[in-house]
Amino acid sequence: MKNTFGNNLTVTLFGESHGEAIGCVIDGIAPGIRVDRAYIDRMLELRKPKGRISTSRHEADSYRILSGVYEDHTTGTPICIMIENTNTRSGDYAALNVIPRPGHADYTAQLKYHGFQDYRGGGHFSGRITAPLVAAGAIVMQALESKGIYIGTHISSMGDIKDRDFEDYISDIEDLYDREFPVLDESVEDKMRAYIEEAASKGDSVGGILKSAVIGCPGGIGEPWFDSVESMISHAIFAIPAVKGISFGDGFSLGRMHGSEANDAYRMSGNGVITTTNHNGGIGGGITNGMPIEFSTVIKPTPSIYKEQDSVDLKNGVNTKLKIEGRHDPAIIHRARIVVDAMTAIVIADMLVTHYGTDYLCNTDL
Amino acid sequence: MKNTFGNNLTVTLFGESHGEAIGCVIDGIAPGIRVDRAYIDRMLELRKPKGRISTSRHEADSYRILSGVYEDHTTGTPICIMIENTNTRSGDYAALNVIPRPGHADYTAQLKYHGFQDYRGGGHFSGRITAPLVAAGAIVMQALESKGIYIGTHISSMGDIKDRDFEDYISDIEDLYDREFPVLDESVEDKMRAYIEEAASKGDSVGGILKSAVIGCPGGIGEPWFDSVESMISHAIFAIPAVKGISFGDGFSLGRMHGSEANDAYRMSGNGVITTTNHNGGIGGGITNGMPIEFSTVIKPTPSIYKEQDSVDLKNGVNTKLKIEGRHDPAIIHRARIVVDAMTAIVIADMLVTHYGTDYLCNTDL
Amino acid sequence: MKNTFGNNLTVTLFGESHGEAIGCVIDGIAPGIRVDRAYIDRMLELRKPKGRISTSRHEADSYRILSGVYEDHTTGTPICIMIENTNTRSGDYAALNVIPRPGHADYTAQLKYHGFQDYRGGGHFSGRITAPLVAAGAIVMQALESKGIYIGTHISSMGDIKDRDFEDYISDIEDLYDREFPVLDESVEDKMRAYIEEAASKGDSVGGILKSAVIGCPGGIGEPWFDSVESMISHAIFAIPAVKGISFGDGFSLGRMHGSEANDAYRMSGNGVITTTNHNGGIGGGITNGMPIEFSTVIKPTPSIYKEQDSVDLKNGVNTKLKIEGRHDPAIIHRARIVVDAMTAIVIADMLVTHYGTDYLCNTDL
Amino acid sequence: MKNTFGNNLTVTLFGESHGEAIGCVIDGIAPGIRVDRAYIDRMLELRKPKGRISTSRHEADSYRILSGVYEDHTTGTPICIMIENTNTRSGDYAALNVIPRPGHADYTAQLKYHGFQDYRGGGHFSGRITAPLVAAGAIVMQALESKGIYIGTHISSMGDIKDRDFEDYISDIEDLYDREFPVLDESVEDKMRAYIEEAASKGDSVGGILKSAVIGCPGGIGEPWFDSVESMISHAIFAIPAVKGISFGDGFSLGRMHGSEANDAYRMSGNGVITTTNHNGGIGGGITNGMPIEFSTVIKPTPSIYKEQDSVDLKNGVNTKLKIEGRHDPAIIHRARIVVDAMTAIVIADMLVTHYGTDYLCNTDL
Repeated sequence: MKNTFGNNLTVTLFGESHGEAIGCVIDGIAPGIRVDRAYIDRMLELRKPKGRISTSRHEADSYRILSGVYEDHTTGTPICIMIENTNTRSGDYAALNVIPRPGHADYTAQLKYHGFQDYRGGGHFSGRITAPLVAAGAIVMQALESKGIYIGTHISSMGDIKDRDFEDYISDIEDLYDREFPVLDESVEDKMRAYIEEAASKGDSVGGILKSAVIGCPGGIGEPWFDSVESMISHAIFAIPAVKGISFGDGFSLGRMHGSEANDAYRMSGNGVITTTNHNGGIGGGITNGMPIEFSTVIKPTPSIYKEQDSVDLKNGVNTKLKIEGRHDPAIIHRARIVVDAMTAIVIADMLVTHYGTDYLCNTDL
Repeated sequence: MKNTFGNNLTVTLFGESHGEAIGCVIDGIAPGIRVDRAYIDRMLELRKPKGRISTSRHEADSYRILSGVYEDHTTGTPICIMIENTNTRSGDYAALNVIPRPGHADYTAQLKYHGFQDYRGGGHFSGRITAPLVAAGAIVMQALESKGIYIGTHISSMGDIKDRDFEDYISDIEDLYDREFPVLDESVEDKMRAYIEEAASKGDSVGGILKSAVIGCPGGIGEPWFDSVESMISHAIFAIPAVKGISFGDGFSLGRMHGSEANDAYRMSGNGVITTTNHNGGIGGGITNGMPIEFSTVIKPTPSIYKEQDSVDLKNGVNTKLKIEGRHDPAIIHRARIVVDAMTAIVIADMLVTHYGTDYLCNTDL
Repeated sequence: MKNTFGNNLTVTLFGESHGEAIGCVIDGIAPGIRVDRAYIDRMLELRKPKGRISTSRHEADSYRILSGVYEDHTTGTPICIMIENTNTRSGDYAALNVIPRPGHADYTAQLKYHGFQDYRGGGHFSGRITAPLVAAGAIVMQALESKGIYIGTHISSMGDIKDRDFEDYISDIEDLYDREFPVLDESVEDKMRAYIEEAASKGDSVGGILKSAVIGCPGGIGEPWFDSVESMISHAIFAIPAVKGISFGDGFSLGRMHGSEANDAYRMSGNGVITTTNHNGGIGGGITNGMPIEFSTVIKPTPSIYKEQDSVDLKNGVNTKLKIEGRHDPAIIHRARIVVDAMTAIVIADMLVTHYGTDYLCNTDL
Repeated sequence: MKNTFGNNLTVTLFGESHGEAIGCVIDGIAPGIRVDRAYIDRMLELRKPKGRISTSRHEADSYRILSGVYEDHTTGTPICIMIENTNTRSGDYAALNVIPRPGHADYTAQLKYHGFQDYRGGGHFSGRITAPLVAAGAIVMQALESKGIYIGTHISSMGDIKDRDFEDYISDIEDLYDREFPVLDESVEDKMRAYIEEAASKGDSVGGILKSAVIGCPGGIGEPWFDSVESMISHAIFAIPAVKGISFGDGFSLGRMHGSEANDAYRMSGNGVITTTNHNGGIGGGITNGMPIEFSTVIKPTPSIYKEQDSVDLKNGVNTKLKIEGRHDPAIIHRARIVVDAMTAIVIADMLVTHYGTDYLCNTDL
């Protein structure tokens, strides 16, 4: 379905980095969800580039909600969120149509769109297109929170620098939403910033690994086989530019473990059932078990580096050198985390709506 | 869409481990594809349990093609592949409905299906259901091969034992199809088998990591954002039981790399463009670039172990101990590889059909 | 999606008239629905050819439920229903691959499948493939009845012979299920039978118009725009061979009416709202209003007639004459009605599940 | 999928009559299609209300293309078309939230959205939302025309006034695009206008029947069963407000015909095959046969009439009278015809793209 994702709660994405506007349409969302603009602003703020570790292209990201919201509540009809592009310097990108940037989508876009793509600023492939996704995710997140479901993501590692794991999920997630740089152990922030700045000073860039948690999702959600929770979340997360891997629970470490180490034992807890460990990340047979859903995502280093790179001149069919100009991020992982949260919120909401029906997410008395 | 996957070439799965039959329906497949039963048999054979490293439940896996194939060619209409269940010992599973096995779907199935699930042998969650998927994948694989597209998967690591990487893709893939135990460096086979047998001797099980390659897929296939090649492959691969992570190209290592290390430089090669490295696994911006598509998949240790485990008695709401009886695999990774190949074939074919149209896969003169 | 239909409750169809078997997979159906084989048999019986007004090809239609039902209840996983083909006389059809029958799909199948189609007996286009749809519909219908939703269809006209309209919906629908020949006014049955037999005696065939009613469907179901109740029902009903038109409420008569005649006034009835007329067939803005959903379907005359017809020899590219042999129905409308009921049940159930969630149709205490 | 329609070429709709803006997103459209704004304007002009037979609410319908078009060609990425709402008089509608207008969606919207819907001007159910659909259809139509495919719709009857049938399809369709009032026989225009005006003078409204033709569509397009050409077209056409019936070829007349009258005989015509009649509307077994695709659509009388009507006060649960104020159309059929053309273009294009692949519609050298 190309630029539409979801089964019952869907999001449709549109826009190019230097076109008139970018945006998305969320459909299948319940009527009666209160829409708090301050909440959306807060999430958009966490995606914005800031300081020396980000691009100097600053966009106001002032979004308009064109439809689907009336008197501060969702109407139940599609919500179109639009952000007009204003601060564009297309000249910087003029040559990229013919000399593709390594690590970017320039070359594959050329293969797919035969030269008709709007290549300016990466066009439809630009990370900028995630801004309306974050706004959409914010509306969904508010609805999830009214059901006691919380989602948060931190940088678990960058180079050899490691953050601590989630401990008290709720307070950790709250803290993350207060932090521009998403780490749980505040003492690692300076190290990671220094690591990014050092790469930036050499015209280079860095990647890292994000760890996400979803708290409060009921058990029994998701499907065996093709719409497993892992399938749905991974489908959505791989849509985010620069993501190259995802794993649930103990992830790739499971390849070195034995069954006796990887199985999560069941125990009664009050009237409910819990697992005493969470090696499987809250999911069994593709279905939630009520424990925190946990997954890790690897973000590759930003491909836009200032070092000279080998490329080709597609027009003339010869090898050439490329030196990228313009304004670029030496790291995007600290900004990507809120995009991961937004996409996760959309997927979880979609699965809940599929299971409990259209009106489930409504947080107002119907 | 629950048990149906794909956009234009779809597969719909049905069946329970100890029900009447298991099977799948493949739809959207071109007419005129030659169906070679020996080819299907060969792929099914690679999925079968064998020797001391597998379960002693042996199924004939004699499949019937109920529709969609006429005079040894696909007709273009849905192909239903059915395998009747014969060798079932349901008694072994009687208690699992109330005492869920750690690491299995017993508990989440109970949450989702409220006790109405056919719990015998894991029911609809059984790895056995992958047999018809492999048969379906085999039909698709034959069509892909006629287009010069080849897919292969080996065990890249198990515990601390590592196989070598792909070198000559075509001959490596050919070799893998000749080997019951899928490693590229034959000298590691004995080590891995010994590692499995040692775990088995202790009533335990092992996991591992698979590495897959798709060779010959044209560039320009896939979509930006939601139907990226990574999104589609991961969606399909996470449908396979025991998969808990997937990564493309250098995967999670990218979290420790710099942009200058992770970018794949472009060079002319004859009239075409190649990349001199393949850190991004043949995919840029979600779209194929013509290089090998490479990804790694982690298979968790088989949850059915013979050691006593903590669980709960769901009927009485009390803690209890569980000791699993029956016939189980101490490892499934060597069998799972062909399932990964089959699902990958289906996804790649789906994306090709979406791009080039319905008749693309036909390998006969139309 | 080709041979799969539905959003959350889906049906996937497979099979050819003279292949090994025909069948379908229903997915997204709640666990815990009691499956009564006698109920399924009764609906299949109403589809079977009988007497002088039908083909003399008699199929046992003994179906097998391969999956998704355990201890007489749905498990919540996909239900595969299979009917093996036994009574096939393929020789009758040998030439149809090259000389297409007017009114049939022979020629369009050739265009689409390039000669690889299984042309015997109409192959995948055969009306016979509706048998598993009826069985699937029967399972769904039982679930709907437990929610107080009833569906029935009668022949409202055939040639110039007209049946009376629905009066007491519930008892009319009950009567229809007791009648092999579905008319409300029993006095028209003989006239319609005579009309069919007269056509048959001349080697000709007849069509007619069906009128259907759905009683008890809650208001507020369906979607504005693309998944309107009319859109979903029509999509499903046009899948039935020989259907060439569908209309809701007063249908095409609305083209001669004024707004003051076509609008349905609202009135209070107890605590609820009803309309005093039902010109709009229970649907406003694509959404149910709680009144009976009513629609008419035209079934074209069976194309298999014994009169000599003009056709072409596709192999040699020349005009030719065709005289159809074999066993054919002079009318299928009296058999098609139960297929309309089955497809309608599936669509209504799909919309209810979308609205109320996965478990809605369960008719057992969860 | 609620507000998204299509398999490979999709359209997603958003907006409310009196909200900020209305619009749609078209996705899956080939790169390289030339976008001619004059062509879009011409189609939008045919949808606009004009003269005494239409509402006096005049909207500029000045649309913006926010994405997916670059240098006057499609880029291959989603096209978002947006029309801002300017000329709104919401006060007219204030009471409709509690006193639903007969024939409108007010009551069903209330049932579905629980009072959160934006009821002003019919909100999301307003016929106004068809404007962006027409703009989207115009882009698709241009691409179809470059493939020799033409679509046109006329008013075949209104009350007892009948237009002539299509004769020379191409020139008839061209004429229709030059006419504000879409009839083939210009002599009936005055009669139909008088018929509308007479109803309007009494505060009443009229409906009618549209006849559409698609010329030049290749044979072999569409699917048996669920995605038959009839299924896909009807699904899309029933999305248009006020449509209550659709039929293909001879439609409901087939209920009075014999097989010998309804079958379309095949004949050679040059190297190709044609049918000598077109009772089946260019479709056999759900698949195109290369003849004109023809269908009829009934448009119900506009529900907004000025006569006093019976309704209910939903707030107080009592019967009441309703007298509609504001600006309304006494007929919309002459405006609806271009919406039918637009939706038909989108469906035909979707089926062609499914069959021939993503790049098929490109009308520029790739």
